[in-house]
Amino acid sequence: MAMFSKDITSMHDLFLHTMRDIYYAEKQIEKALPKMISKASEGPLKEGFESHLEETNGHVKRLEEAFRSLGEEAKGVECPAIDGIIKEAEEVASEVADEDTLDAALAAAAQAVEHYEISRYGTLIAWSKEMGHDECTRLFEATLEEEKAADSKLTRLAEQRLNKAA
Amino acid sequence: MAMFSKDITSMHDLFLHTMRDIYYAEKQIEKALPKMISKASEGPLKEGFESHLEETNGHVKRLEEAFRSLGEEAKGVECPAIDGIIKEAEEVASEVADEDTLDAALAAAAQAVEHYEISRYGTLIAWSKEMGHDECTRLFEATLEEEKAADSKLTRLAEQRLNKAA
Repeated sequence: MAMFSKDITSMHDLFLHTMRDIYYAEKQIEKALPKMISKASEGPLKEGFESHLEETNGHVKRLEEAFRSLGEEAKGVECPAIDGIIKEAEEVASEVADEDTLDAALAAAAQAVEHYEISRYGTLIAWSKEMGHDECTRLFEATLEEEKAADSKLTRLAEQRLNKAA
Repeated sequence: MAMFSKDITSMHDLFLHTMRDIYYAEKQIEKALPKMISKASEGPLKEGFESHLEETNGHVKRLEEAFRSLGEEAKGVECPAIDGIIKEAEEVASEVADEDTLDAALAAAAQAVEHYEISRYGTLIAWSKEMGHDECTRLFEATLEEEKAADSKLTRLAEQRLNKAA
């Protein structure tokens, strides 16, 4: 990312920049999820992370297709947002002593990741519609559905904790 | 934040830690919003940021009430997630050359901030219900409604760009 020049001079530039941002983010998530899987206790949380890792591989491929549809090379730009979200997840996880609380912390961290992605894909869909990039719209909508479903699954896990506590 | 000891030994500790995380985040957002207001062009985006700054002041006060209801001092812990999200917003904004694209970039950045908050308050509500902290639940639900409304307003602004383009 060129930090001292105004390289973004059109909506197309901003769109591409944001695609590169989420491309980098998805690749960081691909690296972070195996660590979260290894920390989660056996059961629905671990299984949810495992299936989301597979989905994440698919999101990377969809982004590569989207870049191709625009005649652009698939590449990332540094994304301080996802770096911060993942750093925070790792810091909190390292501070938790017991398994049950660690699961809750991991699930919460995963929801912060999901919401970052939901916001970015939502933005990209609005812009791809505006610019008539129908193939990008289709690809991003498919991914957004999966991100929202992953978030809902984590919400249900949090609610199940509540029912267990009651 | 004590990074090398396992200081979080219960759900109550994790709950308090997450309250401190979002307390710090809200205070960073209070500092960041005036800069975003000064960069946004006159119109609904700038007005939306202005009214969200007022709401954010209220979110800080609600968190202070929530701490009080638990007999705890209101304090923050460093939150690399919001620091990263704000850093990214400032970097992207500094790279955009024209006013219309800058507005789109600012709105997208604000949605990333909203989604971080939506995820954290959603988590806090699930946990406060689990632990029977009814006053916290009530306060966080009021804030979550405002965060979701702010996010929806930004989505509508993005859709209006689309209608303008069509």
